[in-house]
Amino acid sequence: MRFSRPLAELIEHLEKLPGIGPKSAQRMGFHILRMPADDVRRFAEAMVEARTTLRLCSDCQNFTSDEVCAICSDARRQEGVICVVGDPRDVAAVERTHEYKGRYHVLHGLLNPLEGVSPEDLKVKELLARIQPGLEEVIIATNPTVEGDATALYLARLICPLGVRVTRLAHGMPIGGELDYADSATLHSAFEYRREMS
Amino acid sequence: MRFSRPLAELIEHLEKLPGIGPKSAQRMGFHILRMPADDVRRFAEAMVEARTTLRLCSDCQNFTSDEVCAICSDARRQEGVICVVGDPRDVAAVERTHEYKGRYHVLHGLLNPLEGVSPEDLKVKELLARIQPGLEEVIIATNPTVEGDATALYLARLICPLGVRVTRLAHGMPIGGELDYADSATLHSAFEYRREMS
Repeated sequence: MRFSRPLAELIEHLEKLPGIGPKSAQRMGFHILRMPADDVRRFAEAMVEARTTLRLCSDCQNFTSDEVCAICSDARRQEGVICVVGDPRDVAAVERTHEYKGRYHVLHGLLNPLEGVSPEDLKVKELLARIQPGLEEVIIATNPTVEGDATALYLARLICPLGVRVTRLAHGMPIGGELDYADSATLHSAFEYRREMS
Repeated sequence: MRFSRPLAELIEHLEKLPGIGPKSAQRMGFHILRMPADDVRRFAEAMVEARTTLRLCSDCQNFTSDEVCAICSDARRQEGVICVVGDPRDVAAVERTHEYKGRYHVLHGLLNPLEGVSPEDLKVKELLARIQPGLEEVIIATNPTVEGDATALYLARLICPLGVRVTRLAHGMPIGGELDYADSATLHSAFEYRREMS
């Protein structure tokens, strides 16, 4: 016995979402059957609306409903600094710290030759177009992974010759972490970039 | 900075799905933004269609698009046995064993006084209406949890006096499990219901 067709179809769509296996998809499917019909309609509309109205900011390439996103059009943000991230969610992560007051640039991916992701697949061209006189610093905040490191190195080689300062987020022990649980690559970085205590 | 409104709304809907936290909802939201627009439309339609066309089988109360579900209308299934489960997904779980050839009854929940789930909230009335001459056995297959046990006991007290055999799925060690990892309640059941080896 399989589920009846409309339910099976819904579950099939749910299963394609990232991180959702067959079990969770079933659970979500049955949950939707029990939701008020109006909520389901609103949910479905929100999905279609988000997909159809959102596009990429012409400056930073983050998702936005306008030509230019809220951060890029915010005059209070520093114009001279661009923080380069791989994914729009990374923008949200940095914003949560309430520390950074510059602009962003979203690459929409990281270099990954094994999976066929090359510079043309990322928003690199758009980043280079933003390297204009007046820009002081490009902070590369790609993930500290093989792909993130490769992307950082690639970008640094392109941008440094243009006379702009290029920096990378520090690597080291996460706050609250335990040495015992740290992987050796992190520990290695933490030793290498150790700081003087004043 | 929050996400732009259409995306924030979509993420809000996704977060209400069972087992989905804010992080997964964001991940799913961005995934939907990157899906082909046609796929998103089909997904949204499947959601609304499932919710609007599916209803409860007039016999077993499982979800179906017809008046009577595929199992209840299958003449090859034994009419004399009803397997009572809490959730439609439990029907799918039992069907996967390919062992059981009787009918089902879905309660759509388990008794839970602390959360205010009483017999009137479950499909108990509908089950009792199915206790007719010719019915030989009611197999109670509610979860082996406090709620499942309470529900089983409650149903047994209602149905036994009607002269129908009421059984419950065996408790014990799961196949492939390790004694070392078994909780004591399971071990206790496994000892209590131990069987003679022939």
